[in-house]
Amino acid sequence: MAKTAYPLDKVYGLLEPGPVLLLTTADATGRPDVMTLSWHTMLEFEPPLVGCVVSARNRSHALLRESRQGVINIPTADLADKVVACGNSSGRTTDKFTAFGLTARAATQVAPPLIDDCFASLECRVADLQMVERYELFVLEVVAAWVDADVANPRTLHHRGYGRFMVAGETIELPSAMR
Amino acid sequence: MAKTAYPLDKVYGLLEPGPVLLLTTADATGRPDVMTLSWHTMLEFEPPLVGCVVSARNRSHALLRESRQGVINIPTADLADKVVACGNSSGRTTDKFTAFGLTARAATQVAPPLIDDCFASLECRVADLQMVERYELFVLEVVAAWVDADVANPRTLHHRGYGRFMVAGETIELPSAMR
Repeated sequence: MAKTAYPLDKVYGLLEPGPVLLLTTADATGRPDVMTLSWHTMLEFEPPLVGCVVSARNRSHALLRESRQGVINIPTADLADKVVACGNSSGRTTDKFTAFGLTARAATQVAPPLIDDCFASLECRVADLQMVERYELFVLEVVAAWVDADVANPRTLHHRGYGRFMVAGETIELPSAMR
Repeated sequence: MAKTAYPLDKVYGLLEPGPVLLLTTADATGRPDVMTLSWHTMLEFEPPLVGCVVSARNRSHALLRESRQGVINIPTADLADKVVACGNSSGRTTDKFTAFGLTARAATQVAPPLIDDCFASLECRVADLQMVERYELFVLEVVAAWVDADVANPRTLHHRGYGRFMVAGETIELPSAMR
């Protein structure tokens, strides 16, 4: 996808609607892994801070903790099968990029790759580990953002549980001062 | 709305898609307030723990901190005007329930009221304040949940910034082991 750099102060608008994410990480040799996650929240506008719950049952937990780097990728509905496949498998036994046909592209500031198939990718550094022990909550700082500018109303996926996903519908606009 | 008690272990499916929420609180005299928020994440399945960012600029921040109680209400698109009105005003100068025609209904376990106009309401107690100072992040435990069982695919609102809201679209189902 043809992505361009995206202003960091606008990143919250990508994550606030609550899309399912594909989080990429990498081990010390640079070999990438990817997991599906839905438990995340914006914590600060700029620099954008994102809280992501990554269970210690996922290999990504250790990779994130060790490397302190990750990339948040936002998939759309055309990738639903791959999103579920990533969520139903483990990087301990599966090379998910190869197995599910995901396209890795080098990031600019971190080691884990962007997923080129996703319309948006956010390069992140781990900013705070203090809530990991209690809640498995990592605070990530977005240091670079890439978005396909042609996708104005992305058909993002929103998990309702056990493989049921709401697909983003129409966008409405109301006079609001709320950022 | 005709709401029935909802199993606590299914609450995550209501919040995971990332809907805009109306959070009700109450002062010491029982007078309710309400705010609009979009920065939240599930932190635990059961008992359900929800992390909510409530800025100290909002009156609700102090009310939540003092009373340690709140109700998370989930509005649908028919309430969009009221959601925005709540977000653009302050309980310091406006009685939002009266001004915007919201219907308060007594909760069973906490002092702040449910918003009867919302299809789902989650009675909460503040479980952890340790992340409030750094991130304005309150951890709420859901102690009772009420849902209109007739609303299978709620047309929830998902904020894209500055009054642009994505409205929940179709629901798709895929074979998944992901809870």
